[in-house]
Amino acid sequence: MHISGASLIGRRDVAGAAGFQAIDPATGAALDPVFGRASAQDVDAACTLAAQAFDDYRNRPLDARATLLDTIADRLLALGDTLIARCVAESGLPRARVEGERARTVAQLRMFAQVVRDGAFLGARIDPAQPGRQPSPRADLRLQNVALGPVAVFGASNFPLAFSVAGGDTASALAAGCPVVVKAHPAHPGTSALAGHAIREAVDACGMPDGTFSLLFDDGHDVGTALVRHPRIQAVGFTGSRAGGVALMTLAAARPQPIPVYAEMSSVNPVLLFPHALDARAEAIGRAFAASLTLGTGQFCTNPGLILGVDGPALRRFEAAAAAALADLPATAMLTPGIHAAYDSAVERLATHAAVERLACGAACGEIRHAGRAALFATRAEDFARHAALHDEVFGPASLIVRCPSLDAMHALVERLDGQLTAALHLDERDRDAARAFMPLLERRAGRILVNGFGTGVEVAHAMVHGGPYPATSDGRSTSVGSAAIGRFLRPVCYQDVPDGLLPDALRDGNPLNVPRSIDGRLGVRA
Amino acid sequence: MHISGASLIGRRDVAGAAGFQAIDPATGAALDPVFGRASAQDVDAACTLAAQAFDDYRNRPLDARATLLDTIADRLLALGDTLIARCVAESGLPRARVEGERARTVAQLRMFAQVVRDGAFLGARIDPAQPGRQPSPRADLRLQNVALGPVAVFGASNFPLAFSVAGGDTASALAAGCPVVVKAHPAHPGTSALAGHAIREAVDACGMPDGTFSLLFDDGHDVGTALVRHPRIQAVGFTGSRAGGVALMTLAAARPQPIPVYAEMSSVNPVLLFPHALDARAEAIGRAFAASLTLGTGQFCTNPGLILGVDGPALRRFEAAAAAALADLPATAMLTPGIHAAYDSAVERLATHAAVERLACGAACGEIRHAGRAALFATRAEDFARHAALHDEVFGPASLIVRCPSLDAMHALVERLDGQLTAALHLDERDRDAARAFMPLLERRAGRILVNGFGTGVEVAHAMVHGGPYPATSDGRSTSVGSAAIGRFLRPVCYQDVPDGLLPDALRDGNPLNVPRSIDGRLGVRA
Repeated sequence: MHISGASLIGRRDVAGAAGFQAIDPATGAALDPVFGRASAQDVDAACTLAAQAFDDYRNRPLDARATLLDTIADRLLALGDTLIARCVAESGLPRARVEGERARTVAQLRMFAQVVRDGAFLGARIDPAQPGRQPSPRADLRLQNVALGPVAVFGASNFPLAFSVAGGDTASALAAGCPVVVKAHPAHPGTSALAGHAIREAVDACGMPDGTFSLLFDDGHDVGTALVRHPRIQAVGFTGSRAGGVALMTLAAARPQPIPVYAEMSSVNPVLLFPHALDARAEAIGRAFAASLTLGTGQFCTNPGLILGVDGPALRRFEAAAAAALADLPATAMLTPGIHAAYDSAVERLATHAAVERLACGAACGEIRHAGRAALFATRAEDFARHAALHDEVFGPASLIVRCPSLDAMHALVERLDGQLTAALHLDERDRDAARAFMPLLERRAGRILVNGFGTGVEVAHAMVHGGPYPATSDGRSTSVGSAAIGRFLRPVCYQDVPDGLLPDALRDGNPLNVPRSIDGRLGVRA
Repeated sequence: MHISGASLIGRRDVAGAAGFQAIDPATGAALDPVFGRASAQDVDAACTLAAQAFDDYRNRPLDARATLLDTIADRLLALGDTLIARCVAESGLPRARVEGERARTVAQLRMFAQVVRDGAFLGARIDPAQPGRQPSPRADLRLQNVALGPVAVFGASNFPLAFSVAGGDTASALAAGCPVVVKAHPAHPGTSALAGHAIREAVDACGMPDGTFSLLFDDGHDVGTALVRHPRIQAVGFTGSRAGGVALMTLAAARPQPIPVYAEMSSVNPVLLFPHALDARAEAIGRAFAASLTLGTGQFCTNPGLILGVDGPALRRFEAAAAAALADLPATAMLTPGIHAAYDSAVERLATHAAVERLACGAACGEIRHAGRAALFATRAEDFARHAALHDEVFGPASLIVRCPSLDAMHALVERLDGQLTAALHLDERDRDAARAFMPLLERRAGRILVNGFGTGVEVAHAMVHGGPYPATSDGRSTSVGSAAIGRFLRPVCYQDVPDGLLPDALRDGNPLNVPRSIDGRLGVRA
């Protein structure tokens, strides 16, 4: 299909003011077409249309909403190689990775379709009337979750499919019953346009109201700022830098009506190496670490950017194995020239830091214009504690090993870390007691705790949490991956003594939708 | 028991700088003792102790946590008439109301004990490993909710028991596993001290860690500000004015680590009178309205402050009946001299507003110093739409009737209202179709929709929502009454491939705690 460069405001194409182009990070070449920048009027039109669509869209039968999500998945697949090729060109990601990401995106949409059909997300609760209760009767009380309203979604640079136009934020917001206005990430506008057209076609094919979905282009901050400020927008989904997320939080808190922002921002994802595990398999862990660090050129939110271990021969074996593995890995393309430049600067700052030792540098790759070379550094626990700059995320395939004098020192150091998306422990049976002392601490610090693995590769599942305390995210009470992500876009409403004919279907007598409901606090009754 | 005037920092009494006294609003007399103002050091000590208690407290067995809540309820009851008499003297509320509020407070604590024992609040989810899955195996994923951390609770003036020291915010935070630091409301410090001692005794009797609970006194803003800014505090519960709630939101958003604020603020709780219901029973609805309006001298968050009806003879019959009922009702004590003064000013502003007609004024009551006289006003829909000041909450027994030219005009007017805690509809069978058109609108505007009743009398139940879109609350995704209130103080954590011996009990193989768990997204399985 043809990519026009226009924003999509519901069913309408809006060309916008010219414009900007995508850059192929492997070659530095600009890709056609030129994308028009949406205007303030376009933002207002998209948000107004979304608000007009809201009551209609959210009150469609659950099955119709689920069918929309399935249809979006179908239309994405129907784009075939057009989508894959454009995404590879715009992101520099390898074809296999992009194909895998498409599969993940499609599976995510289908999972949310199932979540919608199941109806448990409605959280239906019924406390039947007790007319004879003393000293006063109890009214009939029924609760269900309803959608928050139109949601602004910001496409992420590092997942041009799975966390962009048709990604997790959009899927969970549409599943919750919220119309969505997406601000496309300027690094992959063509991919965004293709996905946006797929969603628009699905909205039309399913007979959903105009305004259920819009897509706006901009390579600056104006559209994003106007979106978050728009009175019709009721929540924001964002994956990106800490600076970007904090800016959106500030905008949202300063509105006449503050709204929730779900920003997935920065995390160094500490990896804790326990002594017996290191003794037994330092080299294997080191090689697995190198593979995780360089996956997707290190451009994952869950990239292992910080390694903690008790200094000694076993830790040095780990370091040597990781360094050797990294030195053999050729540099691969980064997502954008800007990300590449920022990465090189951050690596240079670490390399020249007085308290930091460089252990390894990945191989160069002359053929790729914006290639990120892996880098591994080491420092001492006391230096890490002293230098706040060493705690910052480096977006890309760089990691810092902190050599701790003891497990107690490691414990004290973890207590000083910011909130994290993940924390990984490498341990053997004999490390269990030592690890147990870290668990309460890690529960306070991270959204996901994993053992003998690395955080990269976030499963789309019911028990997944891709979240964590600030500044890993803006709101540690939520996850942006997995079925629980739908909860971000819902709020509860109670119906008291409302006649059956005026109740929402999920709360009517006889449970016509057959959704899980709790009765008097007893869970899981489909009655 | 003796009230000393000291703050409670865990087990320690801290006298503080003198000081302030409670005022009996019925007589204007100052009540002994003098309460000391807590210092910045006291705030720090209480928060630090709470943080030290946190991991220990939250990891106690669920049954131990539930027993703490039950024990607090027992100790409150054991205070007997001492608590009732002090609360009557400090609040001006009638004895029967205070006794009822104690019953509600005790029931609330026991309900949260049951919620904790049940374990559904943990939201346990398990996605078992799929080692043979293609193209890549799936890890074992388990999720449970964990407590946020120490919570700052602000006592509310209008519920000196049920939304104060041992009230809903404290009960739900303790139930979630969060230590609590309460800032007592200066209008009822003696009641607060008695309840605080009851909690401290229960914490001791149950062997819970020192710092699980602290209580601080202050009649200014310093302690509250320091509490919300303290880095160890992880969430805030507040019930009070919009200005107060917004100030806390601003403080919390400006922290280096922003935290959630659950502020229940202002609401006019619109009541919609439909034509057939009015025709059939205007007088009965009018009398019921007058009773709801003056309950507790109108000092309820859910007080019916705004009545909307289509103008005509039936609405005028409603007005006449309500006015007659109100004129007969003697003024009753308001909570504080300050609230009384603010109420009188607000009533005076309405009475002298060019677009407002005064319909009724309650009888005076010379014997009570700070008595609030009921007041009923009327205006036209176009004037209401034009004058934003008429939309503001008047805290006390005053209400405004808006005479609408048509149901369509009423609909348009509701669309302009702010977020509300409740919206009530009075309707008959023949009003159903008209009412149906209002339901989507009310779902967007209110946390609770009720039919043929008034919002006063908030049931503590599983399906209750005492919340609503901003500015009714700071966070419309939550409720501060009912069992769902526990969710405000929780966040999800995922455990990936964590060995059984390191997992929290709720997620271990064999479900040793017998809590509800979902397996692969299927709800309600105790397996």
